[in-house]
Amino acid sequence: MRERLARYLPCLEWARHYDREAAARDGLAALIVTLMLIPQSLAYAMLAGLPPVAGLYASILPLIAYTLFGTSRTLAVGPVAVISLMTAAALGPLFPAGSAAYAEAAMLLALLSGAILLAMALLRLGFLANFLSHPVISGFISASGILIALGQLKHILGIRVDGENAAELLLGLLAALPGAHLPTLAIGAGSLLFLFLLRSHGARWLRALGLPPRLAGNLAKAGPVLALLASVLAVGLLDLADAGVRVVGAVHGGLPSPTLPSLEPTLIVQLLPAAALISLVGFVESVSVAQTLAAKRRQRIEPNRELVALGASNVAAALSGGFPVTGGFARSVVNFDAGAQTPLAGALTAVGIAVTVLFFTPLFHNLPQAVLAATIIVAVLSLVDLGALRRTWRYSRQDAAAMAATMLGVLLLGVEAGILLGVGLSLLLFLWRTSQPHIAVVGQLPGSEHFRNVERFAVVESPKVLSVRVDESLYFPNARYLEDRIAELAGQHPQIEHLVLMCPGVNLIDASALESLEAISARLHAAGIQLHFSEIKGPVMDRLRASDFLDHFGGQVFISQFEALAALDPQTTRQAMAQRRNGHAPQPATPSPHKDNHREKRP
Amino acid sequence: MRERLARYLPCLEWARHYDREAAARDGLAALIVTLMLIPQSLAYAMLAGLPPVAGLYASILPLIAYTLFGTSRTLAVGPVAVISLMTAAALGPLFPAGSAAYAEAAMLLALLSGAILLAMALLRLGFLANFLSHPVISGFISASGILIALGQLKHILGIRVDGENAAELLLGLLAALPGAHLPTLAIGAGSLLFLFLLRSHGARWLRALGLPPRLAGNLAKAGPVLALLASVLAVGLLDLADAGVRVVGAVHGGLPSPTLPSLEPTLIVQLLPAAALISLVGFVESVSVAQTLAAKRRQRIEPNRELVALGASNVAAALSGGFPVTGGFARSVVNFDAGAQTPLAGALTAVGIAVTVLFFTPLFHNLPQAVLAATIIVAVLSLVDLGALRRTWRYSRQDAAAMAATMLGVLLLGVEAGILLGVGLSLLLFLWRTSQPHIAVVGQLPGSEHFRNVERFAVVESPKVLSVRVDESLYFPNARYLEDRIAELAGQHPQIEHLVLMCPGVNLIDASALESLEAISARLHAAGIQLHFSEIKGPVMDRLRASDFLDHFGGQVFISQFEALAALDPQTTRQAMAQRRNGHAPQPATPSPHKDNHREKRP
Repeated sequence: MRERLARYLPCLEWARHYDREAAARDGLAALIVTLMLIPQSLAYAMLAGLPPVAGLYASILPLIAYTLFGTSRTLAVGPVAVISLMTAAALGPLFPAGSAAYAEAAMLLALLSGAILLAMALLRLGFLANFLSHPVISGFISASGILIALGQLKHILGIRVDGENAAELLLGLLAALPGAHLPTLAIGAGSLLFLFLLRSHGARWLRALGLPPRLAGNLAKAGPVLALLASVLAVGLLDLADAGVRVVGAVHGGLPSPTLPSLEPTLIVQLLPAAALISLVGFVESVSVAQTLAAKRRQRIEPNRELVALGASNVAAALSGGFPVTGGFARSVVNFDAGAQTPLAGALTAVGIAVTVLFFTPLFHNLPQAVLAATIIVAVLSLVDLGALRRTWRYSRQDAAAMAATMLGVLLLGVEAGILLGVGLSLLLFLWRTSQPHIAVVGQLPGSEHFRNVERFAVVESPKVLSVRVDESLYFPNARYLEDRIAELAGQHPQIEHLVLMCPGVNLIDASALESLEAISARLHAAGIQLHFSEIKGPVMDRLRASDFLDHFGGQVFISQFEALAALDPQTTRQAMAQRRNGHAPQPATPSPHKDNHREKRP
Repeated sequence: MRERLARYLPCLEWARHYDREAAARDGLAALIVTLMLIPQSLAYAMLAGLPPVAGLYASILPLIAYTLFGTSRTLAVGPVAVISLMTAAALGPLFPAGSAAYAEAAMLLALLSGAILLAMALLRLGFLANFLSHPVISGFISASGILIALGQLKHILGIRVDGENAAELLLGLLAALPGAHLPTLAIGAGSLLFLFLLRSHGARWLRALGLPPRLAGNLAKAGPVLALLASVLAVGLLDLADAGVRVVGAVHGGLPSPTLPSLEPTLIVQLLPAAALISLVGFVESVSVAQTLAAKRRQRIEPNRELVALGASNVAAALSGGFPVTGGFARSVVNFDAGAQTPLAGALTAVGIAVTVLFFTPLFHNLPQAVLAATIIVAVLSLVDLGALRRTWRYSRQDAAAMAATMLGVLLLGVEAGILLGVGLSLLLFLWRTSQPHIAVVGQLPGSEHFRNVERFAVVESPKVLSVRVDESLYFPNARYLEDRIAELAGQHPQIEHLVLMCPGVNLIDASALESLEAISARLHAAGIQLHFSEIKGPVMDRLRASDFLDHFGGQVFISQFEALAALDPQTTRQAMAQRRNGHAPQPATPSPHKDNHREKRP
């Protein structure tokens, strides 16, 4: 019974062994993460087009939900930059930012995202996240970072710029630059500089002041709170709000009252695609972070249980005035480094945020939007990795093309269009790549039972049996290509009586390929050539037996290519075997140490 | 020069050897195909929602274009049932059927389809047709056949039924059944019976009358012309048009005047998705037919040149008042059987149709729509193959699911939605299938250098080296799964120091999988385990060398699994090799002759 419950509530597992030492570590980690999370939550709410307090709300109940259901010990959930940007992109065209309808739609979006994640868990659809290949995710995050930073620059400059894409934003910023509001610019640029310096040198300076390295590192990451406090003080003392510096203004404090967003069918249909993408992107990001951190302590996370936990977190966000959330990279690393032992650190963080909401919201009245914008810019620019494009290009041009398409799509067409473009191109290129598999004519290495590519090795070819090796599973992307190539090869060898398809690299034959094999067999037959197979793998053979193909194609299935040749052309095969006795050692036709013949050893 | 021209105009090739005998055979084939094509062209135009003469127009210039550019000697292009249905589905919601705007939009659709086919040829995108897997195409055609037949029944019954999908059509037919128009029903049912009997027994009966078998078969296929003439006579003699039998009415004769449809951007954007699907479906169908027929005479077709030829045919259709066309199955087979030697038979058919348009259109005034409907129903029902669903299910449930989804989609949601559903599900199931590849722990077969699955064979496992074989390419669908499984396997073997990934079935490692290998290597490292590889294929190795992965992962790449074990755990490997000398023959752990150990021989 307990075990069964623990399957659904992983918290029961760690709660059994919970002790004072773990509590102390969790408490410290919670404190540091809370300090980091306050400015981030406010900023990401602004980025999502919501009142700042929504960011704090989204950092209370969702953390409790993850504590109950999550399998990662150290993942910290809440609002994150990319998901906030996607929220704004989904809601911006529908409602005026800051309106009540906008806020309610954000809750609905979180609810839909939660429902989709839970449905994916139930239907074991976690594999859908695989659609988002690594180049697409990487390109998406870099481009989102640039787009977010460009979108926040107006707050630093104290100007109004509207733009749907990176080009419009950039042109708008340049056009409006002369009208920059100098006091705002001073605060914004000052915060930016402070945060950049703190990020790059803060930990070293704090260590130089005598702090222990780990504490120094974590305090440096909580630095935005300092900027926040300093700017609030400055605005208050210098009456900068009256001088035109835009501040957060009145924040309604108090805990969120549980409410269900109204479930309007039209709006649900409108938001569903965005909710699905938000769920997938959030899940992929969160699981990558959780897996990386778990491996460091030799712990394990369970992706399907993570779907449940993230789903529950988003439902919790929806019911408490929040917006879509997921596991964040920066905060999870801080939580881990600060020594969090169990997900209880997350619950304690939630308590910290709740206390903030209850007692400290008046503090935020004078908080300049420029400081929040600086917080966002510094956070997202660390996600931008343009070098990845070059590295990927060096490895694979197709993957780099998918990455570049995603980036350009996000920058110029928007986040959703960018992801869809990248995924579509990935699938297309993947299909293209497997649609023309490597197909080699092989011959017998003299004096051995091995068969190798005739173009790379000096091998013996039978005059009446053509041996063809296919280095790919046979399925719909390449079924018709196979037909074409076999017809071509048969045409080039008019004297042959048999064609043996050697299948060591064939992991699957789907219905389309089976149909193609039927066609190939029939066409070869019509030309007086009999088809055979060799080296078909066990599971593939099981499948073929379930069809009636083997009953009527008329050829044989040999366990090895050597057996096939020994049966179909014993004379040539015997001669080839005998060649070694005459001293002919096998030699590559062309010296190609980088190809079939490679051998790498490294110490 | 001549060779280069021949690359683009395959007709120059066969024209060089053209002689009187070929001309005689082409002429006979053209006559038979013309007789078959007249009723079909009229009927498919009606199915597409166009005036009957549009069907004749679509059977003149397009045939000439294919004669010039096509690489198949016997393919007959023109309006076909499925493409006509897709045309109606695309245009129906936009314009009233029969209107001038509708007809012009049909020409635009043909132009777009032609442009897409030409662009695919230019960009070598013929592989896109692979997206349409065999189960999707098969399900699509069967369901289209049912949908078309259902849609034509109202003409047989002489009633009005409107319906967007199969369910609505069926219910509408049942509801309107009592109002059936008896004279129409008599003609319609009579034609249906006649055509069905002719199709199934006609050739035999004609042979019994003493005709040579081939001529008998072809005459039987030209039978619809008989039904057409008989019904025209009956309607004229009995004044059935006045009795309420709906007839084709006045047909504007004369050759089509070349016109360009107006290129309205909004309409182009609206029609583009339908045009793309029509192009793909038409191309796939046409190429399959052409390939099958070419193989029978040991000829070759070139898919990329076929794109050009079909593109030109569609452009020709657009410029001469037609609608989208492609290579048809039935008429091509008739053309082939009737002895067509070169594409000139197609040009001669075009002349036959042109003569019909010029001189015989007054004949069609009294042609009952019920007879055209009967022609359509008999033609399309021969395309319906419900048994394919059962056969596919027996071979592969995933493929059968894709087929069933396509069929249900076409019947209930429409042709485009059905195809997209099928393609989407194919990709999804394909991704799901490769997202969890077969990954086996392997051990050394005693007394040999071979490594086999520990669950199927009695093998020797090293206590400190874990050997893992992956039977799939490593790419984004399974990159994360690989991470999970390796972590799991490493967790199950806490004592190991090395993990060797055996890659004989890995045909590709994409950027996502490379990233996963980085993560796997780093996580294993953190757990004190070193990753190695064995049996990486040449092209994959070339790729890996282009990245810096091999420089820093710290392990080795062995040419074989045996070498890996000999280097990493020489003692166990030596012992395993020695076992044979002690008389231990390799034996399967479980008797499984159907699995790895299969061997099939058939006479």
